[in-house]
Amino acid sequence: MNQKGRFLNLNVGINTTGYLPEAWRYRTGSSADITDPAYYRALTELAHTGLFDAAFLSDHPALMTEATGRPFHTLDPLMLTTHLAAQVPDIGFVATMSSTYNSPYNLARRTQSADILSGGRLIVNIVTSFNRDVAANFGNAPLPPRSERYARALEFMDVAKALWASWDRSREQAVPENRFWDASAARTIDHTGPYFSVRGPLNVPRGPQGYPVIAQAGASAGGIELAARHGEIIYCNILCRQAGIDFRARVAERARAAGRDPAGIRIVPGVVVILGATRQEAFRRHELYTGAGSEDGLIARFIKEHGFAPDTFNADAILDPKHFLPPSDRLQALGMGLGLYDLLTHEKLTARQVVRRSAGHHRLLLGTPEDVADGLIDLWQDGTVDGYTLQPPRAPDDIVEFIQKVIPILQDRGVYRRRYENSTVRDRYGLPYPSASDTAGAYA
Amino acid sequence: MNQKGRFLNLNVGINTTGYLPEAWRYRTGSSADITDPAYYRALTELAHTGLFDAAFLSDHPALMTEATGRPFHTLDPLMLTTHLAAQVPDIGFVATMSSTYNSPYNLARRTQSADILSGGRLIVNIVTSFNRDVAANFGNAPLPPRSERYARALEFMDVAKALWASWDRSREQAVPENRFWDASAARTIDHTGPYFSVRGPLNVPRGPQGYPVIAQAGASAGGIELAARHGEIIYCNILCRQAGIDFRARVAERARAAGRDPAGIRIVPGVVVILGATRQEAFRRHELYTGAGSEDGLIARFIKEHGFAPDTFNADAILDPKHFLPPSDRLQALGMGLGLYDLLTHEKLTARQVVRRSAGHHRLLLGTPEDVADGLIDLWQDGTVDGYTLQPPRAPDDIVEFIQKVIPILQDRGVYRRRYENSTVRDRYGLPYPSASDTAGAYA
Repeated sequence: MNQKGRFLNLNVGINTTGYLPEAWRYRTGSSADITDPAYYRALTELAHTGLFDAAFLSDHPALMTEATGRPFHTLDPLMLTTHLAAQVPDIGFVATMSSTYNSPYNLARRTQSADILSGGRLIVNIVTSFNRDVAANFGNAPLPPRSERYARALEFMDVAKALWASWDRSREQAVPENRFWDASAARTIDHTGPYFSVRGPLNVPRGPQGYPVIAQAGASAGGIELAARHGEIIYCNILCRQAGIDFRARVAERARAAGRDPAGIRIVPGVVVILGATRQEAFRRHELYTGAGSEDGLIARFIKEHGFAPDTFNADAILDPKHFLPPSDRLQALGMGLGLYDLLTHEKLTARQVVRRSAGHHRLLLGTPEDVADGLIDLWQDGTVDGYTLQPPRAPDDIVEFIQKVIPILQDRGVYRRRYENSTVRDRYGLPYPSASDTAGAYA
Repeated sequence: MNQKGRFLNLNVGINTTGYLPEAWRYRTGSSADITDPAYYRALTELAHTGLFDAAFLSDHPALMTEATGRPFHTLDPLMLTTHLAAQVPDIGFVATMSSTYNSPYNLARRTQSADILSGGRLIVNIVTSFNRDVAANFGNAPLPPRSERYARALEFMDVAKALWASWDRSREQAVPENRFWDASAARTIDHTGPYFSVRGPLNVPRGPQGYPVIAQAGASAGGIELAARHGEIIYCNILCRQAGIDFRARVAERARAAGRDPAGIRIVPGVVVILGATRQEAFRRHELYTGAGSEDGLIARFIKEHGFAPDTFNADAILDPKHFLPPSDRLQALGMGLGLYDLLTHEKLTARQVVRRSAGHHRLLLGTPEDVADGLIDLWQDGTVDGYTLQPPRAPDDIVEFIQKVIPILQDRGVYRRRYENSTVRDRYGLPYPSASDTAGAYA
């Protein structure tokens, strides 16, 4: 238990071959796995043996067709998690869905259905989509600017919450003998706003969690506003303690400004773990799994990615954080770029050091199982983070290794569960239940 | 086997309390059933013992809140069927989805995911939605007129089929050692039309059925065009033989005009079965389950529904079909009204007779198990219909009775399977598989 009296929360990513695009060369399995239901069932059963809070599926509704890449987003996350929840007990599921390319009624209905079908195990990760390939699958309008996407997302979630509360069977009064139900337990929401007009009520009643737990990932100003207003589990890039403390403070300040108690917000950043019998072995595997091949390769990639001049670059000089501040019109998710900037603001690091601190924009923990357990506990013990979303470079291999080697250490140190004790993910995360009397007005 | 060498195909409706709104008073179970996953699992396991082709879920994305009614559409059909398919083998599932209130990319992706997850057991029932309550949940635009809804639906299905074929792993060539996949197996569709612009490719590959079997229900001119172009299983209102023969001829003529072989179309109308130890008992149960209470009650309801003058109406006079031709601007699904008109065109019937010929707009079969088996076989034997979608007045009770009393007769007469023999619903319906080389152009 940490100072808040809670266990370390751990989700685990189960997209296709694992998180790092080049690491499939070192994984067990075939390319057919990525669209094979049996593969995802095996990953989920594996995650269940590791007592993870939830299996996490990120998403873009588009196929990236680089010949040298590998598909990372294929089967629809909500369909796949519904299939898996029917077969594997206890574990929760994070399904990523776009507020830009769905309608609130359909999304509210499908997710509430999935939460009921899974017995209260759904976490919906709301993203606004930042990708031109996605936009091209949904009409010929260009991708809306970030500010508009987030304004729409805020209203979208207001509508979704009102719909989720609109048919509450706990409001049912005694039903006369000749009646099937008390229809007054269902109420229209009559929402009219800049982006949506939705009458309601939803035709699916409140579920076991009130509504599904809401996850959220953005770190731009709009993303933080969405997190503050609606996010319960924040999936973000936190590369060092002070960045985590600052991030939580920013979200909490915005939450209080919106009249919300920030105690109902969990910070669960991504983390990439690469284990070795020794630290040197973990370093070597890092070089391989990233496709860089060597430390020089990692540095060369860093130089190219950040636009430095290769001839004059000194890998052992302290980096200037200003060079890493992402432009606000950047198309990629803004939060992905901010992590490195924040890290370099708080710690004086060289390129040789920094390439070992993050992978795929997330915190990188390299070393022996003890090193990794120490690293996970470090930022959690004092409440900087509430847990992590483990992004295994290779699936299933790095999930297997983590469960075999790191989970027992976390259990021995008393920071991680030894069995599933609650039935909903809301309980397991210690998140408050929305009040049964909540209505549209309470959210707006 | 019938003259086409096929078994009688049977689907069974599993919406909430059963098909007839008033019949819940005579059913086993509680009102909590209608949103309880365990209830739907029990219904599906029951249907599996009856060797049904598929469990059928109709849908409107809106809650009807009449105090005297009962909800008929709650949990999202595609979510619910995905949950059920993960738990019950063999049986197929018909999930109803709106082409008016979904986007082609999302629908194509979700349904192809569900078809892969179920191992080729998905039938997608495409409807255009005809209900103002639904429209109010998706913006403040009025419901589009029928002609526009069907024009959109035709293009919607062209896009969906192009997307379903856009990533075909059978097109993969030998993959060089350092590559994960042959990305050229995925191709953009670059669709631009009056309603949709979609680039593709879909990020879910072709599934075990090529694409999900497509069901369709409309009987207006637009509905028949959609059936002819895209429908594989047609769910419709056929109250007598000649109406069925005419309907099939109309669909076949339009199919040929569109360059499609009508041999790939199955007519599977709805049927309501009410059993009794005697024909009189079945009549009595009909009066109860409809809520009419008596034959006079059935006739009184008929008089009111069709706008006759109660004082002068003669229940034993032959009815004039012209009185029953639905206005083309009628808001309700047009096909629902045409069935009665067609019946009265082909048979001279009184009100007292006709109230026993349909229920909930579908063909009504009343009598002993032998009577019902005779009635089912009658229109199937000569190929007028390919099977039926059984709509039980009460669920689970009338499904139980049908399986116990009618299925054995159908088996003894050699017209119905004794075990599940194929793994996909496409095989079980004898429907052709879309060619692996199909592309957008082949469908457009």
